[in-house]
Amino acid sequence: MIEGARVFDLEQPRAEGMPVHPAHQQAGYSYLLHRRHEDEYRPDESGPRTGAAGIIVCAEHTGTHIDALCHQSDALTLYGGVSVDSSVQTPRGFKRHGVEEIPPILAPGVLLDVAASKGLDEIEAGYPVTAEDLEACCERQEVSVEPGDVALVRTGNARQWEDPERYLAGPGVAASASYWLAERGVIAVGADNMAWDVPGLRDPELGCLMPGHLILLARYGIYIVENLALEELAAAGAHRFDFVCTPLKLVGATGSPVRPVAVVSSR
Amino acid sequence: MIEGARVFDLEQPRAEGMPVHPAHQQAGYSYLLHRRHEDEYRPDESGPRTGAAGIIVCAEHTGTHIDALCHQSDALTLYGGVSVDSSVQTPRGFKRHGVEEIPPILAPGVLLDVAASKGLDEIEAGYPVTAEDLEACCERQEVSVEPGDVALVRTGNARQWEDPERYLAGPGVAASASYWLAERGVIAVGADNMAWDVPGLRDPELGCLMPGHLILLARYGIYIVENLALEELAAAGAHRFDFVCTPLKLVGATGSPVRPVAVVSSR
Amino acid sequence: MIEGARVFDLEQPRAEGMPVHPAHQQAGYSYLLHRRHEDEYRPDESGPRTGAAGIIVCAEHTGTHIDALCHQSDALTLYGGVSVDSSVQTPRGFKRHGVEEIPPILAPGVLLDVAASKGLDEIEAGYPVTAEDLEACCERQEVSVEPGDVALVRTGNARQWEDPERYLAGPGVAASASYWLAERGVIAVGADNMAWDVPGLRDPELGCLMPGHLILLARYGIYIVENLALEELAAAGAHRFDFVCTPLKLVGATGSPVRPVAVVSSR
Amino acid sequence: MIEGARVFDLEQPRAEGMPVHPAHQQAGYSYLLHRRHEDEYRPDESGPRTGAAGIIVCAEHTGTHIDALCHQSDALTLYGGVSVDSSVQTPRGFKRHGVEEIPPILAPGVLLDVAASKGLDEIEAGYPVTAEDLEACCERQEVSVEPGDVALVRTGNARQWEDPERYLAGPGVAASASYWLAERGVIAVGADNMAWDVPGLRDPELGCLMPGHLILLARYGIYIVENLALEELAAAGAHRFDFVCTPLKLVGATGSPVRPVAVVSSR
Repeated sequence: MIEGARVFDLEQPRAEGMPVHPAHQQAGYSYLLHRRHEDEYRPDESGPRTGAAGIIVCAEHTGTHIDALCHQSDALTLYGGVSVDSSVQTPRGFKRHGVEEIPPILAPGVLLDVAASKGLDEIEAGYPVTAEDLEACCERQEVSVEPGDVALVRTGNARQWEDPERYLAGPGVAASASYWLAERGVIAVGADNMAWDVPGLRDPELGCLMPGHLILLARYGIYIVENLALEELAAAGAHRFDFVCTPLKLVGATGSPVRPVAVVSSR
Repeated sequence: MIEGARVFDLEQPRAEGMPVHPAHQQAGYSYLLHRRHEDEYRPDESGPRTGAAGIIVCAEHTGTHIDALCHQSDALTLYGGVSVDSSVQTPRGFKRHGVEEIPPILAPGVLLDVAASKGLDEIEAGYPVTAEDLEACCERQEVSVEPGDVALVRTGNARQWEDPERYLAGPGVAASASYWLAERGVIAVGADNMAWDVPGLRDPELGCLMPGHLILLARYGIYIVENLALEELAAAGAHRFDFVCTPLKLVGATGSPVRPVAVVSSR
Repeated sequence: MIEGARVFDLEQPRAEGMPVHPAHQQAGYSYLLHRRHEDEYRPDESGPRTGAAGIIVCAEHTGTHIDALCHQSDALTLYGGVSVDSSVQTPRGFKRHGVEEIPPILAPGVLLDVAASKGLDEIEAGYPVTAEDLEACCERQEVSVEPGDVALVRTGNARQWEDPERYLAGPGVAASASYWLAERGVIAVGADNMAWDVPGLRDPELGCLMPGHLILLARYGIYIVENLALEELAAAGAHRFDFVCTPLKLVGATGSPVRPVAVVSSR
Repeated sequence: MIEGARVFDLEQPRAEGMPVHPAHQQAGYSYLLHRRHEDEYRPDESGPRTGAAGIIVCAEHTGTHIDALCHQSDALTLYGGVSVDSSVQTPRGFKRHGVEEIPPILAPGVLLDVAASKGLDEIEAGYPVTAEDLEACCERQEVSVEPGDVALVRTGNARQWEDPERYLAGPGVAASASYWLAERGVIAVGADNMAWDVPGLRDPELGCLMPGHLILLARYGIYIVENLALEELAAAGAHRFDFVCTPLKLVGATGSPVRPVAVVSSR
């Protein structure tokens, strides 16, 4: 894995002011440093060593993160027919399909650079990437999506990370593309936007916003990774890699912040 | 990396009531679910999809985590001669040596199973693992610690995770062992206890508690991973592996929760 | 109100380590200072003024606080026949009977010093103060409880504030006493213990723990103030006073931290 | 105090989305309900009673609040010559002049309705209320500001509470008016804007922003109450009243949320 491999960091930096989905803005993201080095510096009594520390307050769906299966329901039923009742849903999280149930993900990864396959730096805000777009992208890249893969869809939206309003308004993935990926047996998907799906776009057939969340998490049991930083990986033209993502075992949580990496072997 | 490899999960589960170091108990660790599926279930208007979400409040040094270099100072100087002043230390964290500066760690890992090398299930509370103990362990395991390695020290203390009081009182690593590892050029170390060093033990020479923190973080620039779950890895007798750990880029933070894994290739 | 009146502060100090009810220990209470004066001290650019600030993380039922009517239900119905459904109970609190609906309380207050009437400094842990105890106390004090009053029951437990374990195990008020007060038409009650009722005591008739919470909040619409500091007021022998308590309008919250005062006019 | 008195509530409601000063937006204000009634509803085992509860995460300077003396320094010296050093300023707040040192405030209150005295509903954004404005207002109202008073300045800005951007940009109090009030010996002041002073206005003489904070808190030891709801009180033409404000004893904190009231006796 290691010798001579190139590692691409797919996490956006976490800081106050980063884009946050309206549904998670209440808690938002804060890091506050309260213990400082000088507080405990008493060289005569306790030597030269000092420590500093802070606290994190955040919604689990801020920054680059993965959605657990309990994050979404299909008519109040979780993936695998688990009913949402008080034995499953508690004040401290879920007893089934919590993010701690996601194993460490080390799987073959494929980048579907849809922006590039359309000859664009980035796809315009609001555009829904369709199954046809993914097909065309695979042809152009001469790759196929295989069972067990983690499929990452690049729209170029990551370039807008510093402009939260524009970033949030970005493009997304249409229901047809979520179905297309699910049918190919991927174990997880990811994209360089806030919520995989197209912001504010209701799917006519399913009658809901964010159809991909319903299809992938609640119906197929496929994880979604959001807010990926895919520019560097795309620039390197790496379409195949080892995808590594280790969600924190936040017991009962509906997701976890993550720092996924793509490992491209030199061979 | 992936085909036929065995992946060991080295993270302890994160839940209220887990052991927390006294210095970080104020914020502690909480996960609170506030958005529930039934809240937005209006099938006629918005289809069958619903979402649930919560918030995390925690000290960055709770659970299995990595210490950033800014976490410790040597007479108010960080690693590399960086003075702790207001240009470096701010209310929102550090401008230098914050955890976001730690690259994704994919490195050769070595398990030093000191408990096993002493013929014990676990080392008694308060015992300081010395350089001699590490030497003896390497001999018995027929491994050596090489530059660029990540060295994990097993005391067996992870077995006490469910008993916070006992876990916190566990054994640790003596200054001599921290020096020994630093001199071998490791890039990171880790152990199955709360704070690497022996709880409450002042180093006579350095005159401080937690000498390993001073030596490794502030003087050698070596990261420390704490609260590792090493029992399964040890039971498998895996002494050499690929160590993968991807700290979250919490800008300015003095550490990050992590879920490290050990990848043991079948070859 | 003011000239020559004596004001008694009935709030316990709020600090980490204070007694917290097991049901509210997850979030607990923390105050963390992150902005410090030196951070923005640049006299040449911005003059001599600097500011410091922090954050509060707490359960609304920590420290001296008042319970809102939405805090308790009677078979999933709030006071006044309000059903607990998603139109009333939301992720951000309650749309009915939230603490913001409590008007500022300025009302005649009466101290029922049950400990003193029993000739004790404090009543033993676990003792349930009965209707008979309140009757006897009123007789001994030559006071009566009138409609519109706020009735404060003193057990002496406030003396144990510094010993959280003992404080939490303190005495409480029996269902008979809650009924007795409710029937007299008080608008609010309070006591010097964690939860008004006797810790862990199930009421045989109602079949629940904390019967006073059911009786007072859910059935009679009477507020409960908890963790009052009553020692100084009792020492002054003040049995009648103006009770002033202004709950914060935390929209939707089930309670609020408060600093009640008793104003004893000199006349 | 009570019979026949009219009580005016001077607190703005606390809810997500309320105006928050840029300096305190990181933690902001959140209330999250996590325990819900149905969670513990098991009538057969535990009777009809259920409880619900949530948590509060906020900066202490959000909503209607009072500033403690430790909130501001004059060249790193607090009121009364207290130097800001590590014996006074700690990760958990201040050991001197913390908000817990503010006694319950029950004092004569005076409303200076500057907007009305100028014949306006509200004073325009950015306007600095001067000493002359206060003089003119006192004359017009036929009131004087006396030692021991709490002086509330009305600009009409409270009408903009629902429009955070406009509210934050509101008018304020000039340094000359802060001096004028300080010299009259008031114990506290308050206004219907975010930060007493004029947003973004540097005082030429003191060379700093928010000169009133320096003058009142750090130099005269006079508390400042911010974000007051003064419309109803002004509409009633009440210029003299009993002002009641009981800051929470948040040990070490630089301020406290409060719900002040004005009590207007019928006599």
